[in-house]
Amino acid sequence: MIYLDNSATTKPLPEVLESFMKSAESFYANPSSVHQLGSDAERLLTKSRTLVADLMELEASEVLFTSGGTEANNLAIKGIALKHQNRGKHLITTTIEHPSVLEAFHSLESLGFEVTYVNVDEAGHVDPDEIDKAIRKDTILVSVMSVNNEIGTVQPIEEIGRLTNKYPKLFFHVDHVQGLGKVPIHIKDWSIDLVSISGHKIHGLKGTGALFVRKNVSLFPLLHGGRQEQEKRAGTENLPGIVALAKAIRLIKQKEKDHLQELKALQGDLKQQLRQIDGLVINSPENGAPHIVNISLPGFKPEVLIHKLAENEIYISTKSACSSKQSDVSAVLEACKLEAERSTSSLRISLSYQNTKAEIDQFVQALKSAVVHVTHQ
Amino acid sequence: MIYLDNSATTKPLPEVLESFMKSAESFYANPSSVHQLGSDAERLLTKSRTLVADLMELEASEVLFTSGGTEANNLAIKGIALKHQNRGKHLITTTIEHPSVLEAFHSLESLGFEVTYVNVDEAGHVDPDEIDKAIRKDTILVSVMSVNNEIGTVQPIEEIGRLTNKYPKLFFHVDHVQGLGKVPIHIKDWSIDLVSISGHKIHGLKGTGALFVRKNVSLFPLLHGGRQEQEKRAGTENLPGIVALAKAIRLIKQKEKDHLQELKALQGDLKQQLRQIDGLVINSPENGAPHIVNISLPGFKPEVLIHKLAENEIYISTKSACSSKQSDVSAVLEACKLEAERSTSSLRISLSYQNTKAEIDQFVQALKSAVVHVTHQ
Ligand SMILES: Cc1ncc(COP(=O)(O)O)c(C=O)c1O
Ligand SMILES: Cc1ncc(COP(=O)(O)O)c(C=O)c1O
Repeated sequence: MIYLDNSATTKPLPEVLESFMKSAESFYANPSSVHQLGSDAERLLTKSRTLVADLMELEASEVLFTSGGTEANNLAIKGIALKHQNRGKHLITTTIEHPSVLEAFHSLESLGFEVTYVNVDEAGHVDPDEIDKAIRKDTILVSVMSVNNEIGTVQPIEEIGRLTNKYPKLFFHVDHVQGLGKVPIHIKDWSIDLVSISGHKIHGLKGTGALFVRKNVSLFPLLHGGRQEQEKRAGTENLPGIVALAKAIRLIKQKEKDHLQELKALQGDLKQQLRQIDGLVINSPENGAPHIVNISLPGFKPEVLIHKLAENEIYISTKSACSSKQSDVSAVLEACKLEAERSTSSLRISLSYQNTKAEIDQFVQALKSAVVHVTHQ
Repeated sequence: MIYLDNSATTKPLPEVLESFMKSAESFYANPSSVHQLGSDAERLLTKSRTLVADLMELEASEVLFTSGGTEANNLAIKGIALKHQNRGKHLITTTIEHPSVLEAFHSLESLGFEVTYVNVDEAGHVDPDEIDKAIRKDTILVSVMSVNNEIGTVQPIEEIGRLTNKYPKLFFHVDHVQGLGKVPIHIKDWSIDLVSISGHKIHGLKGTGALFVRKNVSLFPLLHGGRQEQEKRAGTENLPGIVALAKAIRLIKQKEKDHLQELKALQGDLKQQLRQIDGLVINSPENGAPHIVNISLPGFKPEVLIHKLAENEIYISTKSACSSKQSDVSAVLEACKLEAERSTSSLRISLSYQNTKAEIDQFVQALKSAVVHVTHQ
């Protein structure tokens, strides 16, 4: 089996599952319980939070555990909007954010907020100057993803942080779900206020994620209740999930340190081979994230190719999983203003640190025969 | 070890962990991915949803999976309030709800809603007539828990459903987190619109739960994004957690069917033995839920007794875990209008179907010597 849909989700690592199981079996008490078992659980929670904070160059109190990337994005965006609306009701994002960002903004429009969706170029890049132009006196939030999930565009987060930092009342949120372990981020140095990540994109578990919230940033919680997570996110802590997330972050950071060049080489090789396929266009930018290659095969129905590849146990996607049950057209490629021919025939190959050169070779061979097969049908 | 803090959280069953592991290892694909692995995951998701629906006498489309009881309660309450606010901004609940309900209501007050908190009697019972009196033309939601988490009071949900049903524009939500597997609920027959449950209270996993939403009930989602969960709760589905939740519900329902009388007998025996301790008062009502016994030992500091018991590896709580890091006083017992002497000296013993008569005997012995020990200090 060749799994090349790692931007949709990844296979959990055995080490991550083991950490989960150990905590679920031995540290099942409620960290809020006052007895010994509760304190043991609380200590393990603190240890995990500190580990994550260290890995992200943050303080422990800046780490909030959530149920995933979607919750982290919604908490960041709605949390800032609802809490700081008396200072202004204008928000800024881009046209190619993930649905969990775009739909959160749409929902705020229905509650009376105004949102500016800044355009991107053909390769998906947002121009920091465009963000700057969009900023108004009543703007309270700018949200830009670090890596686009469909085409892998890496946004100029450091520059945007530098410019939003000039407006003391403006918060800057980064959806780093696709970026973690693949592209650098320096939350403090780049003046970012809020950062979202998700466990299942880094060989961790579904239903786990985090929102990093710089100190002194206040939020309107989505989940009110007990006093967990600095009173910003109530609910009995999913301790086994949190331990598993900390482990997954540690391991992906290690991979990034030791194997990023190999992943880049693998991607380079893949692109090289793909370019030799007649009619194939690469939609991903030259200096995009190392794990995503988005292509179009104008004239071909992506689903047909995907099912053909699946016969050989090779798995890739059309655009993003989250919107894949909808029409054929990719909203991201449309926003990049690609012609319909390209935006309706796109395929996404997404790599992990586990993929090998042999798998890539086999995939390209299979894609070539799928194209030939479909053409002659 | 004798674990008697099952209302705070329960130990996951080995069968539940096994189901989790199997899905995490073999069905890790994103259910939204169009390839074969995605369809396999989606099929397992549908199977779990249908199983849960059958067990709860509902249709599959009425089952929304969440990250726990806190999210389910917040989604129900804020979801109804924000969606239906143009019909009215008045909400009703009781004074002894769980913090995830009470704080959700408080947060809505800060957004301009008006909330009536109906009082309860000394045993925690809410009078349906009081609810009826509180209903106004602009009331859009009544939320009442089935079983109180601190003292085990069982509320007259069927009667409240009968009366709220007379108001066609009024939604009725029940926090059934403590009730599941312990007291009956018939969502359709009792005219309930929304019901919250949580996995980790029934030997399932933390970070799992569900909100049951009757068809035709629309909500403002807390988590916007992809089209998961009938577009009421976005986010990549935590499939292993969902499979584990379905398993845990099935198993607790089976226990309820086969062993409820034994659990009641065990509780009866515990109460009988406790009554023989000098000065001890039982705060739980006579016909409360079968798993909770709340007591007060006026004059004793609950923490001291808890730590003494922990020396013998016996684990019980003060009031609820979610509020246990705050002051000594129990907000629930205060709302029941018990004197400070009682509301500041309360202990909660909470049983599961796994506890035995031998454990209960040992616990009572240990409590007796703890009381003697502390008295003579
Ligand atoms: C860029 C981006 N943001 C957010 C998410 C949502 O994360 P999750 O699936 O954990 O809800 C995803 C993936 O689905 C993503 O790719
Ligand atoms: C009655 C009640 N409702 C809601 C909750 C919250 O559930 P969870 O811990 O899954 O967030 C709890 C337990 O903490 C509870 O006892």
